[in-house]
Amino acid sequence: MNALNPAAPQDAPTFSDIEAAAERLRGHAVVTPLLENAALNERAGGRVLIKPENLQRTGTFKFRGAFSRMSRLSPDELRRGVAAYSSGNHAQGVPAAGAILGAPTVIVMPADSPTVKVEGARRLGAEVIFYDRWTEKREEIGAKLARDRGMTLVPPYEHPDIIAGQGTAGLEMARQAEAVGARLEAVLVCTGGGGLTAGVALAMEALSPDTAVYSVEPQGFDDTRRSLEAGQRVGNDPRARSICDALLAPEPGRLTFSVNARLLKGGLVVTDTEVADAMRYAFAHLKLVLEPGGAVTLAAILSGKLPTAGRTVGIVCSGGNVDPELFARILAGEL
Amino acid sequence: MNALNPAAPQDAPTFSDIEAAAERLRGHAVVTPLLENAALNERAGGRVLIKPENLQRTGTFKFRGAFSRMSRLSPDELRRGVAAYSSGNHAQGVPAAGAILGAPTVIVMPADSPTVKVEGARRLGAEVIFYDRWTEKREEIGAKLARDRGMTLVPPYEHPDIIAGQGTAGLEMARQAEAVGARLEAVLVCTGGGGLTAGVALAMEALSPDTAVYSVEPQGFDDTRRSLEAGQRVGNDPRARSICDALLAPEPGRLTFSVNARLLKGGLVVTDTEVADAMRYAFAHLKLVLEPGGAVTLAAILSGKLPTAGRTVGIVCSGGNVDPELFARILAGEL
Repeated sequence: MNALNPAAPQDAPTFSDIEAAAERLRGHAVVTPLLENAALNERAGGRVLIKPENLQRTGTFKFRGAFSRMSRLSPDELRRGVAAYSSGNHAQGVPAAGAILGAPTVIVMPADSPTVKVEGARRLGAEVIFYDRWTEKREEIGAKLARDRGMTLVPPYEHPDIIAGQGTAGLEMARQAEAVGARLEAVLVCTGGGGLTAGVALAMEALSPDTAVYSVEPQGFDDTRRSLEAGQRVGNDPRARSICDALLAPEPGRLTFSVNARLLKGGLVVTDTEVADAMRYAFAHLKLVLEPGGAVTLAAILSGKLPTAGRTVGIVCSGGNVDPELFARILAGEL
Repeated sequence: MNALNPAAPQDAPTFSDIEAAAERLRGHAVVTPLLENAALNERAGGRVLIKPENLQRTGTFKFRGAFSRMSRLSPDELRRGVAAYSSGNHAQGVPAAGAILGAPTVIVMPADSPTVKVEGARRLGAEVIFYDRWTEKREEIGAKLARDRGMTLVPPYEHPDIIAGQGTAGLEMARQAEAVGARLEAVLVCTGGGGLTAGVALAMEALSPDTAVYSVEPQGFDDTRRSLEAGQRVGNDPRARSICDALLAPEPGRLTFSVNARLLKGGLVVTDTEVADAMRYAFAHLKLVLEPGGAVTLAAILSGKLPTAGRTVGIVCSGGNVDPELFARILAGEL
């Protein structure tokens, strides 16, 4: 079936899955506000509406997807627990959901994860197992762990319940924009594996179909942009590096890309320097703490990757889990 | 009249003044959200609702009062312009309002103001004149300036329109708390001259009369707390120093204290160390940039100055205009 119609696999989520996820998340996830800033509007020459998912439980949108998925597990599955692999933020979403749902959690994390993310996972009750981001396959380690311990594997993006959960951010954004009388001409989404992007694109398709949705990726990790152009999934050069630790997925997911290939208008790319500039801007003007991966959409606006003059553009700022040492270095202009 | 009934002077604002100010501010001020954070709730053992006025236009609540006052000036008064004195944040509220209303502005600022605040005022179009915070009287310099240039003096807190404007933050907070089903048992407000505190207290009196409102001040600048206890206005030791540059008013205002003496439950005091801890906590968990003066209420919660176990408490975090150098030092634990 996928071979015949790769753009709409059988297991792709729909908008009704997002609505159902929103119901499950009610009272557990933060309904993050939609912010607007006079200084940013002036700089953009238009209207920029910010969905600050750094204000979400655990500091990123990842809680939405994790809770969406885990709240559908059976009592027996929850009792046996959940395994996950993550570059960091999913590693906090899963234990936070586990703590609420009474499920033990074990997380496979890159050995070079920011300390703030490792400590965050542990504080939320997770067991953390490290792997080498550049030489080992986290999917294999996670799958083996789940098998050996009888746990359910909760992937970071490649599952319809995860995509539907992340899509609740888009659902809120569309409704909040409407409530303030704004017609979103474009929405920019921080893209790693593509789960948040696919979820937001599905929500916009249903609630704001004229909105052009763009992925935004760090230079060297623009697999979604290149895959969109190639019409098929292509990966990143394994030698690439970026400060955007949350967005270093090696290639788009099969499921996420099936959605994104159908719904995205295109892909934007920003440099680490532009990301650092955006983090400083968020500090100085938005008064928000953004992590590098959470600032790529703002970086795209500030560096003019998408024209904003006279337009209304939404940006999802996906997280704020950044080590204070790195943040201080960025404030000092060292990056 | 004041001598007969010092607790209710003729010119004290009322709740209807706050409602009128909210009308004038509509479409100009940000309706800041009311935030809640799972980690903070867990730490407090209760429910903490955060009114983040660092997300307000110009990075602090001060825009509310300045625009509230200046939007009542005549076209001729606006044309002749506005003079103000300020420890920093009013110095951005006034020029931001002036830019919208077409009024030139000149600001008298302490020579040791944070660079970010001086630059903010200038970027918004103000002329800046410096004075020595510890040896000169800013009220006299401001009044003379206004006289010499035919400008209207807009004081930082001692005017009913200013208090009414700041009170719109309390009006929003009371309604937002009700909308999420929260009954505010206490509200903590950052207190310098007392304008925000008086405005919030008036709003709570009208909309949430069972809510106990507390001032929070930095150690050495607890003039409102001591004045509440003494039953009359007393000033601070001029030798006192604090990192909370926004809260260094020498004594409570006559008008603000008349309101606060009638409505406040009491005054809390925090040390600079507790403030720095709160700024780090806001960075790590709330993902908000708070300036020292904007973090005193959070500091009071985190340091246990008010019991929070099993209670619902609101805190106004009044601003986020902090120099990156100071913020980096605080992140590094140097303060």
